[in-house]
Amino acid sequence: MGPMATVDFLKKLTQATPAACDQEHIPLVVHFCSQTPDRTDALNGVGPSPLPSLIEAARSIHRAGAQALVIPCNTAHAWYEELSTAIQLPVLHIVDAVIEQLPLALRDQPIGLLATTGTMNSGIYAARCPEIPWVLPSQRSMNELVMPAIRCIKSNDMAHASQLLEGAIELMLNQGVRAIVLGCTELPLVNLERFLHVPVIDATDALAHMAVRWATGAQLQNV
Amino acid sequence: MGPMATVDFLKKLTQATPAACDQEHIPLVVHFCSQTPDRTDALNGVGPSPLPSLIEAARSIHRAGAQALVIPCNTAHAWYEELSTAIQLPVLHIVDAVIEQLPLALRDQPIGLLATTGTMNSGIYAARCPEIPWVLPSQRSMNELVMPAIRCIKSNDMAHASQLLEGAIELMLNQGVRAIVLGCTELPLVNLERFLHVPVIDATDALAHMAVRWATGAQLQNV
Repeated sequence: MGPMATVDFLKKLTQATPAACDQEHIPLVVHFCSQTPDRTDALNGVGPSPLPSLIEAARSIHRAGAQALVIPCNTAHAWYEELSTAIQLPVLHIVDAVIEQLPLALRDQPIGLLATTGTMNSGIYAARCPEIPWVLPSQRSMNELVMPAIRCIKSNDMAHASQLLEGAIELMLNQGVRAIVLGCTELPLVNLERFLHVPVIDATDALAHMAVRWATGAQLQNV
Repeated sequence: MGPMATVDFLKKLTQATPAACDQEHIPLVVHFCSQTPDRTDALNGVGPSPLPSLIEAARSIHRAGAQALVIPCNTAHAWYEELSTAIQLPVLHIVDAVIEQLPLALRDQPIGLLATTGTMNSGIYAARCPEIPWVLPSQRSMNELVMPAIRCIKSNDMAHASQLLEGAIELMLNQGVRAIVLGCTELPLVNLERFLHVPVIDATDALAHMAVRWATGAQLQNV
């Protein structure tokens, strides 16, 4: 979806792979399908569904030889069930990857979720992991800070994005969250470390580690 | 081929694309075919040919919908003609991309080429652009500095790679080169700027810009 988010995912996947030379790396087929209609617009009822584009991209990856699918876009997971049903590939779920990275001691604590309004409204995180008391930004913070920041990142204006996100994160920390999930794959493209005094789970990195484990496990089974 | 070199290429391509939102980016199908046999070993007669793997990867990309092929690996261009003949896709040539980035005033001046022994021995650069008086590292510099550095980069040991390359670049600058071509896509992964007091052409970046121009031109023709 977002091409820089995809590049970030591929970098994290490569770094997470135990390999000393090219040949030990994981074979990958990647479809940069940036033309996919905007996921949040679709969920807000103001744009076409991305599902046909997602299905076509998944099938093209399958034709090129892929054996499992990962989607480094949180919002696209609103169509996870429909997509999984339409294609013949197993799809790793980004929320499962995030939950795996969350320390056990924090799983009943308030966790802040920074994501698009599409991800928020479709309740992907709450549905996949209802036992966590997710803390979401207010409607105003979403409209004035989080969504403008994500649009800035997509158009490569990192300085402005950083400023907007600092405000959103301050508000969230004041609500007493014990950790923050970066639940939109654009967010880790901004250096947020200086604002964050709590553990941070980066959904992109979590999905990269899950993909490496899947590929490594599959290779082991084939030995 | 080298996965981090591919990530670097994709980042440079995304940055070179004029786009204000996801949907304005170029659709890409990428095959990380790290399992391709080592190109330099093949050219040195001590390993299998990468050609069957290159053809299979190119066909899988074609099946997934690609309309042109770029290969962010200089050494693989030793099989450019055989690959181009075997597939139905136009293949942009990395040396053409480099030459386009070279200032006109420098085209009859000594240009240093840092690349694998495979790229050197197969004479890809000299054959594609014979009018440039290419300056190559000595055999000893290749064996003791350049190739060990490239292997360090492939196994993510950037500090050691940087040290080795510093030596190779010093030797080359002493030979009076007027510019240096980083003719191996692993090399730009190390920060070399502090050693280089001459213009540098990064083959990865050059190929990224050529790909963007190809894609933009093709879209314009379709309008």
